[in-house]
Amino acid sequence: MEGYNFSTDVVVRFAETDAQGIAHHASFVVWLEVARVAYLAEHAGGYLSIQSRGIEALTTEVHVRYHRAARFDDGLRVWTRCVDLRGARFRYEYAIEREGTLVADGFTAHATVDATTHRPIRIPEWFAEAVARAES
Amino acid sequence: MEGYNFSTDVVVRFAETDAQGIAHHASFVVWLEVARVAYLAEHAGGYLSIQSRGIEALTTEVHVRYHRAARFDDGLRVWTRCVDLRGARFRYEYAIEREGTLVADGFTAHATVDATTHRPIRIPEWFAEAVARAES
Amino acid sequence: MEGYNFSTDVVVRFAETDAQGIAHHASFVVWLEVARVAYLAEHAGGYLSIQSRGIEALTTEVHVRYHRAARFDDGLRVWTRCVDLRGARFRYEYAIEREGTLVADGFTAHATVDATTHRPIRIPEWFAEAVARAES
Amino acid sequence: MEGYNFSTDVVVRFAETDAQGIAHHASFVVWLEVARVAYLAEHAGGYLSIQSRGIEALTTEVHVRYHRAARFDDGLRVWTRCVDLRGARFRYEYAIEREGTLVADGFTAHATVDATTHRPIRIPEWFAEAVARAES
Repeated sequence: MEGYNFSTDVVVRFAETDAQGIAHHASFVVWLEVARVAYLAEHAGGYLSIQSRGIEALTTEVHVRYHRAARFDDGLRVWTRCVDLRGARFRYEYAIEREGTLVADGFTAHATVDATTHRPIRIPEWFAEAVARAES
Repeated sequence: MEGYNFSTDVVVRFAETDAQGIAHHASFVVWLEVARVAYLAEHAGGYLSIQSRGIEALTTEVHVRYHRAARFDDGLRVWTRCVDLRGARFRYEYAIEREGTLVADGFTAHATVDATTHRPIRIPEWFAEAVARAES
Repeated sequence: MEGYNFSTDVVVRFAETDAQGIAHHASFVVWLEVARVAYLAEHAGGYLSIQSRGIEALTTEVHVRYHRAARFDDGLRVWTRCVDLRGARFRYEYAIEREGTLVADGFTAHATVDATTHRPIRIPEWFAEAVARAES
Repeated sequence: MEGYNFSTDVVVRFAETDAQGIAHHASFVVWLEVARVAYLAEHAGGYLSIQSRGIEALTTEVHVRYHRAARFDDGLRVWTRCVDLRGARFRYEYAIEREGTLVADGFTAHATVDATTHRPIRIPEWFAEAVARAES
């Protein structure tokens, strides 16, 4: 997928389908999170390493566009990139494809906060550098 | 909530929380669906009445902005309106509040399709009229 | 439902259905939790009041028997009773019915632990008394 | 794990945790299903191959015992065996471990029904033979 360096794979679980016979649209939101966790594991020492430094990343916005239905047992590839790091805010962009066909795309926005006070806290330098390396 | 005629209430379930101690952001997407179902029950004979006429409403887009955390057992009011009915497409807009404070807002976009062929099908007149009455 | 003094109602959400066209069997486990929360709110000052005294109730066992399928938008009544309080352990029993027909039944087992140390801690007297009153 | 020939791995998703900071107990029920799907893919041509022959496998019973908490990002191994095939009924047994420590165990019971009439239908010979090979 052009413009993306990282992807992770998910398989649609039966519990993630609904009575329309397709993957429920809220399931995609969970897969985006699975992709973020995989991205952080690959590039920034994992989500737990961020937490261990006293920082929480809150989700402040979710946007998904559904282009095609996904079905039980479909193998999906979630392309993920981290963009727009500024102050205490950053975003991820996503493209979900099944065998080369775009199934959904979207973005999530996040804010870094102090884990104790829940006040906004600047994105740490090491995280910004890890993302810069990942996206270069 | 100004601009909204309809609301439905949800209470945050324990299963909807996550290890950050707050309602998981994907839970909100499910509550928007609960609100649509309640809206249709109130104004258009219920979702099953739409299905019984051979129409499915697919979700083509979801957008949520999270303004404040929701926690276990919080009572939330989901304000809902149906807008922008055109051809085979329409949208819902939402504002979720807790005791007068905005917790989240967003929209979902939908397409009406023939339940058998899955081809786009115009929004039926009776549905458009029901929405017009609800939103007037 | 004979033998039960307390019930709470749930409506099957669309997100809780699966591609078999019925409520997914894991959804029932969530409804049992919703019922426990309602039971505690009615009889013991709510789950948060238990937590506020430094006690967590862990779930140690879940058992559900599915007698009939539940479908989207079904109204279900979850009958709930708290039984077998001994030391740091207690159980809930459940019967889920739809308009007088048994849909599922089951039980959950729980252990009370100190919220900080996670060591087992005896069920507090006030909780045992609240349950005794509720079940008499 | 003694007595088991098959396992599949899952990693605890953040969405599967709850405000106690651990994997929610209903998440385990979903993982058992993920394990069944993997078992069928390995041994019986996949769940879709069963459906394609006009058979549905309903879940009639779920039992889980929780021995230890699972946490976000834990890697869990779900050991799975299919047992007690009789007429239209069979069971799976499970042991979930994390690095050699038992986290949970349990079973699920299932009934085979005709996908159209939903009447009980004998377990097909090819399925019983596939299970016999898998468990020998």
